Amino acid sequence: MYDPDEVVHLPGMSFKPNYRQWSGYLKAGAGKFFHYWFVTSQRDPLKDPLLLWLNGGPGCSSLDGFLSENGPFHVNNDGATLYENEFSWNKIANVLYLESPAGVGYSYSDDKQYATNDDQVADDNYRALQSFFLKFPNFTQNEFYIFGESYGGIYAPTLSLRVATGGALKTNFKGFAVGNGISSFALNDQSLVYFGYYHGLFGEDLWRDLNENCCDKGVCNFYNNTAEGCAIAVGQAFRIVYESGLNEYALYLDCAGGARSQGAYQRTMFHLYRNYREHWKKVQSVGGAPSLGEVPPCINSTAQMNWLNRGDVRKALHIPDILPAWDICSDEVGALYRTLYPTVKDVYEKLLALGLRALVYNGDTDMACNFLGDQWFVEQLGQKATSPYQRWLFDDQIAGFYQQFGNITFLTVKGAGHMVPQWAPGPSFHMLQSFLSNKPY
Amino acid sequence: MYDPDEVVHLPGMSFKPNYRQWSGYLKAGAGKFFHYWFVTSQRDPLKDPLLLWLNGGPGCSSLDGFLSENGPFHVNNDGATLYENEFSWNKIANVLYLESPAGVGYSYSDDKQYATNDDQVADDNYRALQSFFLKFPNFTQNEFYIFGESYGGIYAPTLSLRVATGGALKTNFKGFAVGNGISSFALNDQSLVYFGYYHGLFGEDLWRDLNENCCDKGVCNFYNNTAEGCAIAVGQAFRIVYESGLNEYALYLDCAGGARSQGAYQRTMFHLYRNYREHWKKVQSVGGAPSLGEVPPCINSTAQMNWLNRGDVRKALHIPDILPAWDICSDEVGALYRTLYPTVKDVYEKLLALGLRALVYNGDTDMACNFLGDQWFVEQLGQKATSPYQRWLFDDQIAGFYQQFGNITFLTVKGAGHMVPQWAPGPSFHMLQSFLSNKPY
Repeated sequence: MYDPDEVVHLPGMSFKPNYRQWSGYLKAGAGKFFHYWFVTSQRDPLKDPLLLWLNGGPGCSSLDGFLSENGPFHVNNDGATLYENEFSWNKIANVLYLESPAGVGYSYSDDKQYATNDDQVADDNYRALQSFFLKFPNFTQNEFYIFGESYGGIYAPTLSLRVATGGALKTNFKGFAVGNGISSFALNDQSLVYFGYYHGLFGEDLWRDLNENCCDKGVCNFYNNTAEGCAIAVGQAFRIVYESGLNEYALYLDCAGGARSQGAYQRTMFHLYRNYREHWKKVQSVGGAPSLGEVPPCINSTAQMNWLNRGDVRKALHIPDILPAWDICSDEVGALYRTLYPTVKDVYEKLLALGLRALVYNGDTDMACNFLGDQWFVEQLGQKATSPYQRWLFDDQIAGFYQQFGNITFLTVKGAGHMVPQWAPGPSFHMLQSFLSNKPY
Repeated sequence: MYDPDEVVHLPGMSFKPNYRQWSGYLKAGAGKFFHYWFVTSQRDPLKDPLLLWLNGGPGCSSLDGFLSENGPFHVNNDGATLYENEFSWNKIANVLYLESPAGVGYSYSDDKQYATNDDQVADDNYRALQSFFLKFPNFTQNEFYIFGESYGGIYAPTLSLRVATGGALKTNFKGFAVGNGISSFALNDQSLVYFGYYHGLFGEDLWRDLNENCCDKGVCNFYNNTAEGCAIAVGQAFRIVYESGLNEYALYLDCAGGARSQGAYQRTMFHLYRNYREHWKKVQSVGGAPSLGEVPPCINSTAQMNWLNRGDVRKALHIPDILPAWDICSDEVGALYRTLYPTVKDVYEKLLALGLRALVYNGDTDMACNFLGDQWFVEQLGQKATSPYQRWLFDDQIAGFYQQFGNITFLTVKGAGHMVPQWAPGPSFHMLQSFLSNKPY
């Protein structure tokens, strides 16, 4: 264990944790330092698996995963005090939260150059992991899993491939999981149009336009269709989903700040419907160029931001004084980021061929990375179905549906949005338990 | 005002109402007596509109509408005390709750013969209305609207046509509204299959089966397809929706009693997918004949049932001692009921031709009468669209979407289930206000 990083006291914490925690920096390359926060398992740290958690964006911080989703404690609305999370994932696992890439949250690089891309992030994360195991060599033998959410749908498999095939780092790597991940830009955009219509967001007129302009003999291309009429119709559809004031991360939850406060094309969306950016000129006539708004839209992160930016909290977490204020997402990292993988199909195929286990889970009311796109993605991997598509239960209620395809599972979490552990904590914990123990859901 | 029926005291009521209420019986035919409960408006009873509220089933009681949905007070979980409903519809309207037909709730007929059908119910309701206006002649001049929910999708327009064209009854009839109504059995069943797949309830295998067996050149018939393979696939789909333990009335709400306590084909569903009953023999191989369960499934009505069955409550409501206990739905009425209208398209067309106003609204997470079937129904009326399909707001949040087609509006309530005023009280009240005042939503 690396003593200097140990967190021995936290402002606002009135309970005594039955686990240890460390916060500090991992070297991710020359002059590049990734902030990590590591919590040991509340059960049996020696035997329980080790889990890496990565939020997406690109440009958003994994501390949101810690403080709002599956961490051992969350921040009260006062922005000053903490409360325990009954369904914390560290009840059964050692969890490493990593702020990645440099420029995100409290991670930085000496040269402040924050342009990066998918392969670079995977390489940097891989080096950060090596740095972690140098600090915590005791955890080399624990079963190891990599979890990514949202744009972590790219991070998790690309990093997993390096861990599984890399030379220097020796771990007991077992598999990876992706929550509401972007797995294929084409499938994500294509499925979103269906999702929108069948959830009542579009009228018949727009649906007719979409079908007449984007489809041929029943086969539709809503993704990179070059027909101008299609680009216009899809632009309209996407504007309703992303700019009308709906909570794109959880259709049935309110939009923090109200529907009218939001209504701008979001930079986080650049990476989702980037094919349509090229068509904006064409669609000027029906809406005009998009402007930037809050990132992420409709989500209120004030409390965790206030807490993380307190001087005493930064000190307790060993954050250098010279670093700027923590923000949930970095606009700069997001804007400068270059996507290299339009789909991670090949990456998954390699990982599955290596015998690794994978879980693709989706809160089914999310529209940023909707469940259907990921369902199609998993099915198109061509793995043989080894179970029917079936319900799973939590607390004697249907918590969602899942299907097993050999070593990979596709699973939905009913009624949950983009941040599954935040909005369905009990079911997600059950899901985690089943996945880690390789038992039925 | 009819004095003997006035409700002057109610057990469990600790607040003083600023409205008057009556409970008693309306004559609906020879020896047929429908129980009504009438509450005046909290605003201006003389000028405010009069609204008739009908729950569906067939066989379910409109007192569920009163005590769980839009009435001035609801029953606490103790089954003994009452609390005020902030969004009661009688804040702006005089509301008449009618238990219909005979055999439902506290309504009865002397001969206890409870077989009936759509036309008979409309005739009986029409006579009950005449009986109401005889007791309450003061309300003849108020604007009058008929609201129906669920199977009330048949009751409301068929009764409206009698009111609009009948001779004896003189009212200031303005229009009708239908909430999550059954408007066309074909469209309801057809749309439900799409709804299920695009909400993540079916896997790709079943979706492929459905498409391969029920569709030809992209045109699908999931409703009364005679192909055996299609009947089997649709049967599987409907079993997942209605029998797997999901709350069919509100997909994202829990099923009261748990998913395992329910799982039987429900009698309330007889009238929804009756075409498939004929195919049950064929599909024995994949599931067996359905059995009966709780009606309505997943809904907990214990509190209101306990309260309504108290001796002192019955007495306060002027219920004869000889009547049996009140139940939320009558299995007998449901089982003996004969549907005559596979669609109420003609009825709507006649009503719209008479210049009446109509509102078809749907909580968009209901699967008993899903929004898409009603959206298609309204569009197929062929009225010219007079507004785009657009969002509407409540409390600065998107509360749903709507489109105007001349005198008829189709409107969704986002995230609400079958019982819209129960699960989205604020938005429903706003909707009611806009509809009654004929203003934008």
